Amino acid sequence: MQGMLFTEMHNDSSGISVKIKEILVSKKTKFQKLDIFDTEFYGKMLTLDDLVMTTEKDEFVYHEMLTHIALFSHKLPENILIIGGGDGGTAREILKHKTIKNIDMVEIDEDVVIESKKYLPTIAVELDNPKLNIMIQDGVEFVKGKSNIYDIIFIDSTDPISVGEGLFTTDFYKDCFNALKSNGILVNQSETPFHKPQWVSAINNKLKNVFPIVKVYKAEVPTYPSGIWLFEFCSKETDPYSDFNFQRYKDYNFKLKYYNDEIHKGAFSLPNYVKELLA
Amino acid sequence: MQGMLFTEMHNDSSGISVKIKEILVSKKTKFQKLDIFDTEFYGKMLTLDDLVMTTEKDEFVYHEMLTHIALFSHKLPENILIIGGGDGGTAREILKHKTIKNIDMVEIDEDVVIESKKYLPTIAVELDNPKLNIMIQDGVEFVKGKSNIYDIIFIDSTDPISVGEGLFTTDFYKDCFNALKSNGILVNQSETPFHKPQWVSAINNKLKNVFPIVKVYKAEVPTYPSGIWLFEFCSKETDPYSDFNFQRYKDYNFKLKYYNDEIHKGAFSLPNYVKELLA
Repeated sequence: MQGMLFTEMHNDSSGISVKIKEILVSKKTKFQKLDIFDTEFYGKMLTLDDLVMTTEKDEFVYHEMLTHIALFSHKLPENILIIGGGDGGTAREILKHKTIKNIDMVEIDEDVVIESKKYLPTIAVELDNPKLNIMIQDGVEFVKGKSNIYDIIFIDSTDPISVGEGLFTTDFYKDCFNALKSNGILVNQSETPFHKPQWVSAINNKLKNVFPIVKVYKAEVPTYPSGIWLFEFCSKETDPYSDFNFQRYKDYNFKLKYYNDEIHKGAFSLPNYVKELLA
Repeated sequence: MQGMLFTEMHNDSSGISVKIKEILVSKKTKFQKLDIFDTEFYGKMLTLDDLVMTTEKDEFVYHEMLTHIALFSHKLPENILIIGGGDGGTAREILKHKTIKNIDMVEIDEDVVIESKKYLPTIAVELDNPKLNIMIQDGVEFVKGKSNIYDIIFIDSTDPISVGEGLFTTDFYKDCFNALKSNGILVNQSETPFHKPQWVSAINNKLKNVFPIVKVYKAEVPTYPSGIWLFEFCSKETDPYSDFNFQRYKDYNFKLKYYNDEIHKGAFSLPNYVKELLA
């Protein structure tokens, strides 16, 4: 096994290669292929259908950037919904905010939760927190008919293929809109503009049809295709710039590895080739 | 040959894999191994000592971000020095600025210039421009003893190993400082904080010992390790924020693929893990 390479081909013509020390688990779940590897550089690495979901070494970029911009923009985030997020990294970041009273986490694949608890303890660390209510079911079905419940919804999904596909539809985004309170915010992971420009444009167009405010920001996730990864901040009335709660940010004084007040604003400055995809 | 993978291992334990259609040239130059591949996703790709230097598809990120921040911060950029840059991408971007009167380009390896002209015409497009004075020699030797000559120096080097090593020393930075005019600016490519944190810290410490103003910014280069790539803006008196010439930026109205006025400022917002390396 030693020296073996795991290679994710992002588009059948380029990819990332990671030297693995050991395969910790490799199984077919009800929904997808799930592997956890111990790697030489990235620590433990979770893949679903052979796509890198998270690694111990770089997960902080994705999980901090998915969550804190919305949490520090919302006036009083108390009741949160996570769609997906079975590894626990998103819940861990949200629970750093002391205003949080409840998180509903709707993960379709129980095996992601089970194996993350077993093999990725630093990521799954809060999965037994009493404020976290884990429901094993389809997020698309869960949000249907819900109204005026959540302060923030985080869509922490896989790619818009196979099991995650329903999480990238206008109908789903409308259901999320309705499930949010009047000052609610939705954030979703929105793929890479470099390898998947057509996905980026499609997601953005659908979200702009549903939410009055849609602002796109970026972060560099080393194990995701091309490094540049997008997130969309969608809201009914909240603006991530003017509503950024700098005082709360200073008071909390988190020890984070990526997010800070400069990043909160700078992450919204986008290259021209990305802006064109969002026009 | 078809379907063959080129894999650059960034640190012997993770890397980037690119499917290649054809090897266009593969040779040992006087200084290094030089290959140009035709790839499926990235177009033509230049590697030196098996490290990706540039590709047709993503070179715009690196070349625009190496150059335009300094060029739009300097009051009147006329006389420029490029150290390295044999593929021509840096010269191409600089020559978009109509104040430029002369560029000295000091490239140690003539074969990089020759093969880039032959196989990378969209990158090498300005290598015969009469304003560009190409000198085939060692940049370290070239700058020794020079005084008060250049408005901006761009260090467009390989990594701080093998042939590029001398371009990452305090003595070389001091010579560059002296070669600059009193309102001069130096920009160098400064590697990735994710895979090479020790290099990033070392380069930054050396530059801070030489220049009174050193500000680090980032861009996402898909084919470079981890995606996040750093550049250092070093100057004697110019500040990239307060001296940004927005009017000139608007007047020029370049059609660029990455750089814009928001990026000019946003690129300086750095993640906490990067700030720690620069402390």
